[in-house]
Amino acid sequence: MPLSAPLLADPVDAALAARYGAADAPRAILHNAVIDGLLAHRSVRSYRDDPLPEALIETLVAAAQSAPSSSNLQLCSVVAVQDPARKAELAALAGHQAHIEQAPLLLAWTADLARAHAIAGDADAPVEGFSYLESFLAASVDAALAAQNVVVAAESLGLGTVFIGGLRNRPEEVAALLDLPPQSAALFGLLVGWPDEPASAAVKPRLPQAAVLHHERYRLDQSEAWHAYDTTSRAFQQSQGQEPVGWIAQLLRRGHSAASLNGRHRLGDALRILGFGLR
Amino acid sequence: MPLSAPLLADPVDAALAARYGAADAPRAILHNAVIDGLLAHRSVRSYRDDPLPEALIETLVAAAQSAPSSSNLQLCSVVAVQDPARKAELAALAGHQAHIEQAPLLLAWTADLARAHAIAGDADAPVEGFSYLESFLAASVDAALAAQNVVVAAESLGLGTVFIGGLRNRPEEVAALLDLPPQSAALFGLLVGWPDEPASAAVKPRLPQAAVLHHERYRLDQSEAWHAYDTTSRAFQQSQGQEPVGWIAQLLRRGHSAASLNGRHRLGDALRILGFGLR
Repeated sequence: MPLSAPLLADPVDAALAARYGAADAPRAILHNAVIDGLLAHRSVRSYRDDPLPEALIETLVAAAQSAPSSSNLQLCSVVAVQDPARKAELAALAGHQAHIEQAPLLLAWTADLARAHAIAGDADAPVEGFSYLESFLAASVDAALAAQNVVVAAESLGLGTVFIGGLRNRPEEVAALLDLPPQSAALFGLLVGWPDEPASAAVKPRLPQAAVLHHERYRLDQSEAWHAYDTTSRAFQQSQGQEPVGWIAQLLRRGHSAASLNGRHRLGDALRILGFGLR
Repeated sequence: MPLSAPLLADPVDAALAARYGAADAPRAILHNAVIDGLLAHRSVRSYRDDPLPEALIETLVAAAQSAPSSSNLQLCSVVAVQDPARKAELAALAGHQAHIEQAPLLLAWTADLARAHAIAGDADAPVEGFSYLESFLAASVDAALAAQNVVVAAESLGLGTVFIGGLRNRPEEVAALLDLPPQSAALFGLLVGWPDEPASAAVKPRLPQAAVLHHERYRLDQSEAWHAYDTTSRAFQQSQGQEPVGWIAQLLRRGHSAASLNGRHRLGDALRILGFGLR
């Protein structure tokens, strides 16, 4: 468990510099092959046509189910979508994201209280507890922990991934397309496929640790870190051929209003229609 | 990327058998060191007194921030708690879980809309969009993805972890203890420390893939898989010296009523008091 030398010039700390920008990277962290793999994560939005390995889906789901689950309730399920027609319909519902059609596999992760309700129905048992926001949150956290293990497993095999939050844009239509029973809803998709991009592309910088890591008590005096990150973001956007608007403008654009949420201002209503209590 | 031989007797498929029970394990999956590490996950609830490595927290946070973030909004922060007195208070608020006091480090993961509100305040920008359930969910998913990367990184260093959902039992008091500003709340804790248990202990079996993995469309005809899992769970509970009540009884006990949620039936009200819109 050797501590790496605090030199941004060495190959390992180049990964830290990519993640934070050279000026704002932590000076030294612990390294091993697993951690270096995590640090190298990038979202992939362009996929090759090559077939996926045999037993891949079973492998990814075994990794997913090995993640922690709140009180072991396992309130999450996944629908593996490979049919091109269904992927095309999901792409349209998620805001016409072309990479959904391109990737060979979309995993739709669901907050699944349907199974718990069915089991309770068989047992004629009351399940009022599942009608609270707590149960939806526990299901959502379960799904996210599971899906992140899939990201890690897929990347360890050389595959690329990207999350598709756009599955929340039109929840009832997505549920109908996937035959989801009442009390279940798709939280997000995860595309999996062979990257059609150089492996070095686009490790996205994040906020300095000074903004997100607090010791003992939260401190909101982070504006220096936000502004440093805004500068780092502009340089990154420019390097990617994007308009260098910075991160703060993107954040404020997204939070502006109900209309800036791409339909997701309806999420609470849609989940209630799909049978969630959210009390 | 070799496909493992479909033999439950070999050391690798022993891991699959531990995760699913021998009868319900997938017959073959893809293996490598990363995937085998994920499959071997177990929660650790007993910790040695040994100090943590230098630069560990920075390492874990770099892994956390390397996880995907919804639209790169980064609506999550983490409070690292090492002070014994504060850990003792958190242990009491989380339902007197002794391992919180024992572990050297508790990472409290927050859904953090406070930063976005502060940035918007500086810019005099409207942020009505952050008052919807969507933004709370995006923050919660961001936090879970980040925290799962920490689990993976910590385990790669030989450390153990366990999630503490009990931080949601009394959200306002936890927020006060951690000085969380309005529009932020602790979603869960994650303990980190050196395991004081044999590494072979207690890989918890999960539902068969037949229950959680669907192809193209969700199918609720899973009762054979639930009942097989209930049997597997009883055998596991017995092997751990626990009362062999099975999984179904535990699920139904938890979902029974508001009272069975350990205070978390108040979660929606508590989050609104803490400043979340949840519209």
